[in-house]
Amino acid sequence: MKSILEYDTVSLSDDGTALVIIDQTLLPGEIKLLHLTGQNEIWEAIQALRVRGAPAIGVAAAIGLYLAAREIKAGERGAFLERLHAAAEYLNSARPTAVNLSWALRRMERTAHQTAGGAEEIRAALHRECLDMWQEDIDVCRRLGENGLSLVKPGDGLLTHCNAGALAASRYGTALGPILLGQERGKKLRVFADETRPLLQGARLTAWELARAGVEVTLICDNMASMVMKNGWVQACFVGCDRVAANGDTANKIGTSGLAVLARYYNVPFYVLGPTSTIDLDCPTGADIPIEERDGEEIRSLWYREPMAPAEVRCWDPAFDVTDHSLISAIVTEGGICRPPFGESLRELVSREKGDAP
Amino acid sequence: MKSILEYDTVSLSDDGTALVIIDQTLLPGEIKLLHLTGQNEIWEAIQALRVRGAPAIGVAAAIGLYLAAREIKAGERGAFLERLHAAAEYLNSARPTAVNLSWALRRMERTAHQTAGGAEEIRAALHRECLDMWQEDIDVCRRLGENGLSLVKPGDGLLTHCNAGALAASRYGTALGPILLGQERGKKLRVFADETRPLLQGARLTAWELARAGVEVTLICDNMASMVMKNGWVQACFVGCDRVAANGDTANKIGTSGLAVLARYYNVPFYVLGPTSTIDLDCPTGADIPIEERDGEEIRSLWYREPMAPAEVRCWDPAFDVTDHSLISAIVTEGGICRPPFGESLRELVSREKGDAP
Repeated sequence: MKSILEYDTVSLSDDGTALVIIDQTLLPGEIKLLHLTGQNEIWEAIQALRVRGAPAIGVAAAIGLYLAAREIKAGERGAFLERLHAAAEYLNSARPTAVNLSWALRRMERTAHQTAGGAEEIRAALHRECLDMWQEDIDVCRRLGENGLSLVKPGDGLLTHCNAGALAASRYGTALGPILLGQERGKKLRVFADETRPLLQGARLTAWELARAGVEVTLICDNMASMVMKNGWVQACFVGCDRVAANGDTANKIGTSGLAVLARYYNVPFYVLGPTSTIDLDCPTGADIPIEERDGEEIRSLWYREPMAPAEVRCWDPAFDVTDHSLISAIVTEGGICRPPFGESLRELVSREKGDAP
Repeated sequence: MKSILEYDTVSLSDDGTALVIIDQTLLPGEIKLLHLTGQNEIWEAIQALRVRGAPAIGVAAAIGLYLAAREIKAGERGAFLERLHAAAEYLNSARPTAVNLSWALRRMERTAHQTAGGAEEIRAALHRECLDMWQEDIDVCRRLGENGLSLVKPGDGLLTHCNAGALAASRYGTALGPILLGQERGKKLRVFADETRPLLQGARLTAWELARAGVEVTLICDNMASMVMKNGWVQACFVGCDRVAANGDTANKIGTSGLAVLARYYNVPFYVLGPTSTIDLDCPTGADIPIEERDGEEIRSLWYREPMAPAEVRCWDPAFDVTDHSLISAIVTEGGICRPPFGESLRELVSREKGDAP
């Protein structure tokens, strides 16, 4: 079986004309690569979670903006930059919560502004920049994985939520990075994966990619995490993040905050793993993070042979929640492990990792 | 639309020859009544959750044992009682966690032993007894509903898990009893219903029956409960129970313990509602309650158009969990509201409600 690490979750096609992604809505049933060129289809792919995971949508958006730049007819610098900005705004509107999306687009636009010359020069610079960001994402995940791996012992049980693995980044992933890295090195970990309703990223993606990598994984429903912790089966929780506020409050997949409360109650360390680009120092607290709400059909009928709830029943379907910083043991990045108080440790980290900072 | 209160979740057919249940595995898509006569099909209906909910399976088993008694050919008292005991053991093996199943069967057997005469007299007594238990269950739910209703104010938001409603008992239900009763009286409550993976009793049954009764209900995934509490949208949690140990530890649908931990963290009162027959004084603590584990296909593929997890991935699928008594604000029964320390308050209640005690 081909390991997930042999696929690129997101990449620029060899001829430089398309964003190539695995359509994650079809997993685990089908592995289908999509070649996307138009802005509408790239926007749709992000919005519909064909590509998802904070680092991956950052890279997808960067490649998407380069492809937009290829299409812009204006040769005059001012008009070109204006049209580029409109394209960035459009891509940025696909999903509100993960800061990596706006971070990647801002970084691409900054590169455009800092490049002398006209449309041709800027296009060339954007081409280099999106490939750099893709390569950096891989390097960042590897360094992040090393840091995460230092927090666990061989044989430890880990609980994870949603998918912060190879499918959520250019390669390796964030929360699953240490697990995949440990597996390669014989430092084996046992994983309990929350299925993560309503979109089942834990069942469809995490269980799938860990199983393919040979990791011992047990799939549970989200509501079973309490008993997994009570039974002493896990020594830590590893979760990803979509945006970390300046005080350490962390937005991540819906259900993360509940898991953090359980971890506190059962005395299990709770680790958030993500690249420095996920830290948003402009966002003072979690209350300032916009939380995406999605269509209740995801709960009522998606995936099912027939609707599993009355058609008329109201559903509340937030895609993310905010975990209070007081519940987080450490925030693990490629640049180091931040401990409380996060106001200080995050600021230090970001200024140290300048290049990657938002 | 016909209200759920117009159906009997479980009953003896008018001609006294069949157990009649709504097949709950088909809801909300189809309302189908099953007429069950054979012991194998009654056992299967309980095991497969066609009838479920602690009080309802108690009554179903009582009716089932009466139907078994009708089939026993032995006219001699000793042989008859022996065969009756075998039938009770068989029905009792359908599900291990809810104590109401064994309680109801023991009560039926006790009636048989206390009845003078041969097979004919015993059959007549069992007929009366199972109908009495059905009627008592309705009365108990109504009294329980009154007690639960005293704990909330009009307009309060309540969080509930699984289905402890009309479909879980002969009528009204336990945790949903106060809500349905309040609705009838204009003391309206707002309900957030956990969908309750993997069998979706919250989506399929609770949302369905509350909506039909006109209650304002919002369906959420289990992992959204943390945010519902954090947002201050609920003033209490109301859950049912399958077995309450002598110290107050409570087995209920998987996910209940996590909800109780969240409720403690967010300072939301956590109420367990159930008939006195659910209290098992012979069971010292939650550690002594057998927890049913079910087939992982419930997580991987049940309900879905195609499997949602890799076929080979291991799943852990406990049907229940145990909530520590320290997390429970009160246990609400038809006989009164028990507060901590539960060791005392439960024992007092059970001795007061002798008739119903196990």
